[in-house]
Amino acid sequence: MGHATDALDAGGSTGDAEGSRKDPEGSTGSSERAVGSPRVRLVRLFTTQVLRGQAQVTFLPNAVTGALFSAALFAAGWEYGVYGLLGTAVGTATARLLGVDRERVSTGLEGFNACLTALCFAVFLGAEQVSTALLAVTGCVVVTVVTAAVVRLLGVWGLPSLTLPYCLLATAVTIAAPGFGRLWHTGQGLAALPLAASGTTAVEPAELARGFLAGFAQIFFMPQWYVGALLLLGLLVAGPRTAAVACLGNAVGVATAWGLGAPAARIADGTMGYNAVLVALALCGVFLPARAATLVYALVGAAAATALGPAVSALFAPSGGHAFTWPFVLTTFVFLAGAKSFPRLTGSGDGD
Amino acid sequence: MGHATDALDAGGSTGDAEGSRKDPEGSTGSSERAVGSPRVRLVRLFTTQVLRGQAQVTFLPNAVTGALFSAALFAAGWEYGVYGLLGTAVGTATARLLGVDRERVSTGLEGFNACLTALCFAVFLGAEQVSTALLAVTGCVVVTVVTAAVVRLLGVWGLPSLTLPYCLLATAVTIAAPGFGRLWHTGQGLAALPLAASGTTAVEPAELARGFLAGFAQIFFMPQWYVGALLLLGLLVAGPRTAAVACLGNAVGVATAWGLGAPAARIADGTMGYNAVLVALALCGVFLPARAATLVYALVGAAAATALGPAVSALFAPSGGHAFTWPFVLTTFVFLAGAKSFPRLTGSGDGD
Amino acid sequence: MGHATDALDAGGSTGDAEGSRKDPEGSTGSSERAVGSPRVRLVRLFTTQVLRGQAQVTFLPNAVTGALFSAALFAAGWEYGVYGLLGTAVGTATARLLGVDRERVSTGLEGFNACLTALCFAVFLGAEQVSTALLAVTGCVVVTVVTAAVVRLLGVWGLPSLTLPYCLLATAVTIAAPGFGRLWHTGQGLAALPLAASGTTAVEPAELARGFLAGFAQIFFMPQWYVGALLLLGLLVAGPRTAAVACLGNAVGVATAWGLGAPAARIADGTMGYNAVLVALALCGVFLPARAATLVYALVGAAAATALGPAVSALFAPSGGHAFTWPFVLTTFVFLAGAKSFPRLTGSGDGD
Repeated sequence: MGHATDALDAGGSTGDAEGSRKDPEGSTGSSERAVGSPRVRLVRLFTTQVLRGQAQVTFLPNAVTGALFSAALFAAGWEYGVYGLLGTAVGTATARLLGVDRERVSTGLEGFNACLTALCFAVFLGAEQVSTALLAVTGCVVVTVVTAAVVRLLGVWGLPSLTLPYCLLATAVTIAAPGFGRLWHTGQGLAALPLAASGTTAVEPAELARGFLAGFAQIFFMPQWYVGALLLLGLLVAGPRTAAVACLGNAVGVATAWGLGAPAARIADGTMGYNAVLVALALCGVFLPARAATLVYALVGAAAATALGPAVSALFAPSGGHAFTWPFVLTTFVFLAGAKSFPRLTGSGDGD
Repeated sequence: MGHATDALDAGGSTGDAEGSRKDPEGSTGSSERAVGSPRVRLVRLFTTQVLRGQAQVTFLPNAVTGALFSAALFAAGWEYGVYGLLGTAVGTATARLLGVDRERVSTGLEGFNACLTALCFAVFLGAEQVSTALLAVTGCVVVTVVTAAVVRLLGVWGLPSLTLPYCLLATAVTIAAPGFGRLWHTGQGLAALPLAASGTTAVEPAELARGFLAGFAQIFFMPQWYVGALLLLGLLVAGPRTAAVACLGNAVGVATAWGLGAPAARIADGTMGYNAVLVALALCGVFLPARAATLVYALVGAAAATALGPAVSALFAPSGGHAFTWPFVLTTFVFLAGAKSFPRLTGSGDGD
Repeated sequence: MGHATDALDAGGSTGDAEGSRKDPEGSTGSSERAVGSPRVRLVRLFTTQVLRGQAQVTFLPNAVTGALFSAALFAAGWEYGVYGLLGTAVGTATARLLGVDRERVSTGLEGFNACLTALCFAVFLGAEQVSTALLAVTGCVVVTVVTAAVVRLLGVWGLPSLTLPYCLLATAVTIAAPGFGRLWHTGQGLAALPLAASGTTAVEPAELARGFLAGFAQIFFMPQWYVGALLLLGLLVAGPRTAAVACLGNAVGVATAWGLGAPAARIADGTMGYNAVLVALALCGVFLPARAATLVYALVGAAAATALGPAVSALFAPSGGHAFTWPFVLTTFVFLAGAKSFPRLTGSGDGD
């Protein structure tokens, strides 16, 4: 095995692989130095790690952003807020117990896939079912193993794991669920051949605005515009540049979808924006430096991920699966791996 | 190419990648030193390699176990016994002819994927057809090439090839078969959208016992409890610990399936146990050391593979494919790759 | 990252990964030294690179072959000729602009995936639609990024990128297209469960001859025998050995399809030959040395790719996708990766 993966083990010195995700910011870093009894300090430290874990869904090791993201989930429904927080907590605790590299745990990198896994189960298998809650806890333990595996496998190329661990686990479980009577309570499977788009492609301005905000909310499977607005506030707290890149990515996603003739209903519910937001953030400022050239590159990536969306949906539809953030993950891998061969993009001879 | 793959080339010194699979055991090792004419000795040596190849389906380079496995296949039907033996022989002979690393050949590592490929064709394309027999011979030649490729590709991560070569080839051929009139004799394709589980989930004790034994038999595509009993005897001959781990894995698989609400019929025919058996064996004693911690880890893996089963079936169903041992292969890769990041699991700082 | 990928960055000294593709031949190399004004020289140089890019679809950095391939496309329809040429030009220009390694650009390695991408869109989305033309230009830009990513990812194993970048992009876009109203003009999706083969398997001699020539044409999605004849002429210009290997591969593909009982209609339209042609060329003379042993190996690969064809079709059918050159790409990866473990094949201890 090459030195890239060793470095990942040795303590996460591969700043490249996880980009700026590993710089805990002032406001949150200080909380670790807070005084108090050892037990209080541990609780405070763990709480900070869990909040950072929620914020890491958008690559931000920022507890305040994480708190706002959590507020957004509670606004969508108290059960979603609870699933999100407990999921992140179980994932983070499992990683601590298994002895995963401390820096990964403390910056929240072991929490965000668990957060999305628990939320995904709540949304697709019924948040109110006891079976869903038990499965979510198990899923958050298993996703820690999947994360460790993905980090090691992708380490060969110096690629970050993104939300791939969650995508793998959530895809497996949601496709398997109808095969298990105690997990699936509707009696009806979801598998169907994909149909050609139908319905109007003319989008009203109000739908456009709602779709833009819902694009942020769909990162967490939610369709409400006000949930998206709270998430955008969380991005703004982390920094105006981050929020601007996210908004540009979202806008490019919506514009691409409109240009290609996506159904207006898909634009209005935010489905066409969430992958674009994540791609733009990842390629401009997190895993590549924030420059004019990388911004253009990131927006091309955001457009590509939007076009890829219906392909992923169509690939999973006959098995009853969902696109989740697969378009973001696949597009970002391609654009990150490709970037190293474009010296004019990053302004260096070779990114290695 | 990194040093991991070079090591694989240089003569298979990567004990890690194939775990304990490469320690030929006393009873079989001695047969290589038997006296007799060169020709007799060669036949005896080759026979031992073929029997070991059958036993390697469960990671055991043990000719006596292989002989019992062969007896189990003959008990299921003489044609299955013949396909299994000849498949292993063709695979092993092809590897010898192509000059594959001697240690891989002598420990049976070049036989087990061919064994499963030939058997799979017999079961799914009709053992009595001449076309199936010809295809099985060709398949056992080609699977040797696939094995070499998989060993090299996975060598980058230090992962073993498991039954991936057979899964790739068997999936390709069984999905392609209905497109070829001389291979497919029923006239009807198998492609169908997956349905939600139906039928009772209440399992009778007798079904449970039958399903437990059939779980071993399903490793070789067979549903009979007595075939499974003979296979379990083969595992017992290899060592009581091996048999105990296999039984625990099987029990966890059945319990997981029951807990999640799998149809009773799927539990009774062994479908819910065979992947769990293989995962448990692989993760406790073969590729990870046998310890209390790895046993727990292996049983979590066995449960995960069982849950993954219906997902793999649903992914292949619309194309007419089968799950085979994909759930075992995918789960084991994830748990093996992840294990290196959990120092508390294997009791070491880093597995590299 | 290992030294293999560094070498790719440092200036493409990995002769192994791209085989003989990087030896510009006399007739074309000389045109780069032609006299004239700087602007004329640049145009002439770029034209040569574009023609080589077309010829690289069959691994040949040969401008004359590329010109004949272009003529074949114009013979199939002027719009196809234009899409092919402009696609290659856009891909090559994008790679130049992004600062990709000069040798890759000058030998046409940055053109052939773009050529196939543009043509594929013309054939499957309607060459006469403005939306198709705009999408083709965008696709040829994006495929350059995909190519850079694939080169880097496969570099870990020393494998060439083949037509994988085009396959990835074309599969994504053709599956996504029915989801976008402005791309898809028929209103009907293509997704369907695969059916078992039906219709006669008895092939007339005239059909066989037509199918043989059409096998070359299908590399570029065309079913006409005279297009195939022009392409074969292009291969002959590059060298009689190249043409002979291609013809043998094609014949093995057709014979395999007939032997397995493929429908006569699939043999007559060339569907059963194009992957076999590409596999034979790749494995005998391009990425492995041309020897008797590698010829046999290449023809086994050609047969395997032919058998794989309907499997790939069945895997994509429920999502509305096509096989494209996936069977060639997957088979070649397996046979190339495997080859390094067979010292008797390449006549060396280890290919590394």
